[in-house]
Amino acid sequence: MKNLFLFLALLLFTTCATLTDSTVQKVANTMSPKKADYALVIHGGAGTIRKENMSAEKEKAYLDKLNEALTVGENILKNGGTAADAVCQTIMVMENSPLFNAGKGAVFTNAGTNELDASFMDGRTQNAGAVGGVTNIKNPILAARAVMEKSEHVFLTAKGAEQFASEVGLELVDPAYFYTERRWNSLQNAKEQENKSGYLNYDNPDYKYGTVGCAALDKAGNLVAGTSTGGMTNKRYNRIGDAPIIGAGCYANNNTCAISSTGHGEYFIRYAVAHDISARMEYLKEDVATAGNAVIKDKLVKAGGSGGVICVDKYGNVAMPFNTAGMYRGYAKPGERVVKIYEE
Amino acid sequence: MKNLFLFLALLLFTTCATLTDSTVQKVANTMSPKKADYALVIHGGAGTIRKENMSAEKEKAYLDKLNEALTVGENILKNGGTAADAVCQTIMVMENSPLFNAGKGAVFTNAGTNELDASFMDGRTQNAGAVGGVTNIKNPILAARAVMEKSEHVFLTAKGAEQFASEVGLELVDPAYFYTERRWNSLQNAKEQENKSGYLNYDNPDYKYGTVGCAALDKAGNLVAGTSTGGMTNKRYNRIGDAPIIGAGCYANNNTCAISSTGHGEYFIRYAVAHDISARMEYLKEDVATAGNAVIKDKLVKAGGSGGVICVDKYGNVAMPFNTAGMYRGYAKPGERVVKIYEE
Repeated sequence: MKNLFLFLALLLFTTCATLTDSTVQKVANTMSPKKADYALVIHGGAGTIRKENMSAEKEKAYLDKLNEALTVGENILKNGGTAADAVCQTIMVMENSPLFNAGKGAVFTNAGTNELDASFMDGRTQNAGAVGGVTNIKNPILAARAVMEKSEHVFLTAKGAEQFASEVGLELVDPAYFYTERRWNSLQNAKEQENKSGYLNYDNPDYKYGTVGCAALDKAGNLVAGTSTGGMTNKRYNRIGDAPIIGAGCYANNNTCAISSTGHGEYFIRYAVAHDISARMEYLKEDVATAGNAVIKDKLVKAGGSGGVICVDKYGNVAMPFNTAGMYRGYAKPGERVVKIYEE
Repeated sequence: MKNLFLFLALLLFTTCATLTDSTVQKVANTMSPKKADYALVIHGGAGTIRKENMSAEKEKAYLDKLNEALTVGENILKNGGTAADAVCQTIMVMENSPLFNAGKGAVFTNAGTNELDASFMDGRTQNAGAVGGVTNIKNPILAARAVMEKSEHVFLTAKGAEQFASEVGLELVDPAYFYTERRWNSLQNAKEQENKSGYLNYDNPDYKYGTVGCAALDKAGNLVAGTSTGGMTNKRYNRIGDAPIIGAGCYANNNTCAISSTGHGEYFIRYAVAHDISARMEYLKEDVATAGNAVIKDKLVKAGGSGGVICVDKYGNVAMPFNTAGMYRGYAKPGERVVKIYEE
């Protein structure tokens, strides 16, 4: 009888231990066991982007520019360059294009100015930099990176951030550089609609969306993320959205993933979206796709927040979840290239 | 034989199920099963605050003001008022005192101005508001709350935030209101030290610390947090710290806890300290003290970030972890009142 109990106890112990092991194994198996040499993922904004409202030319222009941005970043990573350089150079392609709401294509504030925000985070050191409300820095992503690398601070704003950018030698432009007819007309439409109906329907994709972002894994295994935006058309009161908020618009941690967000920024701040995805991977051991879906397609949807994120984990797995009709997005890995606009 | 296998299988199943249940039970037991009627917890900054450097008068002045602030908030909660009102009124007592680096006692920037930041978050709705870099709003915590309640935004800055505050009828002051001889002398000392040694030793508690914050649980079970600061002495470039960053300096979620942070803001942003504590409670099922300690006394210490947080969970359990020599802090619950400065 004593032997039977011993046998039972041993059986119980080994079975429970095996169960625990197999649970761990299951979690590990949902992530790619083989690390990709490098991976690069980008977005150019999420919103009510529908095929029926898009001309063939416009669609081609977006897909071409997304491909161009990916190629610039992929060449850096392929040749052993850093994720930091890849993220900056990739985002600059989109900042320099009038297609996206960042840099050259930034939307106008209620006062008819352009106020740009950007952020940058290094997953190895978990150091970060951001600028908010800048008006004369050609590439705000470079300013965000410079704040991280050349200041003791994380977040510089307005004239102070511009002075800092000037001191570290970044290219400044006349604020008129950011004028585009398309965005100016959007502001006029927004004001007209607001005057008529007393409020602004931000479902219009021209008003709020088009933030750009990039996340990369380099051959050294480092993760970096960056985000750049012009914010919301017709914004007032020096409003700052999620793009320059570390933990909301951008996050990177070599132990989890690198993330850039786009969408209705206020919700992304309140739900600390980028950090939340990283936290789910860290604490719940979810893979990057599961964590991204849980936050974007469940938590944010229940809260009423629209938008999406792009993520890459330490194995080079990419995820691009969004809860809107479309998101300009794409990724590049060795032997793989994807660019997409609409929901599958 | 078949019966023996059935018996074994059943035994295994029930034992494993019991193990899982007991694990859940263990987690639940570490949190107080009985909800306190209300709870209020505050801080007035963490730093190198040592008894040997503190006069008896100064110590008494701080303890008296912390008690005064707690009494104001406790009276609101005791009488069935909201956590939102308690947090605002409690923080205003500290903002209106020259003892703390917030409101009246705000430190000076390198340019000799005072630029104030504040944030506010409601755990029931997870809505939030914040202001950054404001110079003429007497009580920035009221502006943060107004951004949450009366705008569609979360984060307004500089002149825009001041215009908003004026439009919603908040009390504005001449920026000279924020002049105090003590803080002005701190700036002169800071500049002198920087000129001599080429850098500023932020270990001097007068330079960086003194941010105030409050978190409260009201009788309706709602959690609210708020934070207010003057930032860092001698700060440049319109630097913004963690105080107005939702997820870093402030967070609240009725399902987890309400948190306010104080310390070296750049680290609190990079590690999304306030949201990380909430995430550990949500995902790891840690109680508020365990989660607070894990982030403040382990993760932040390893990263080199100094400071502390105050937290209250949905049961009214409070935690006040810090990794510095001292933190002005205290809490009030039915029949309980604690105010402290130094490490135990």
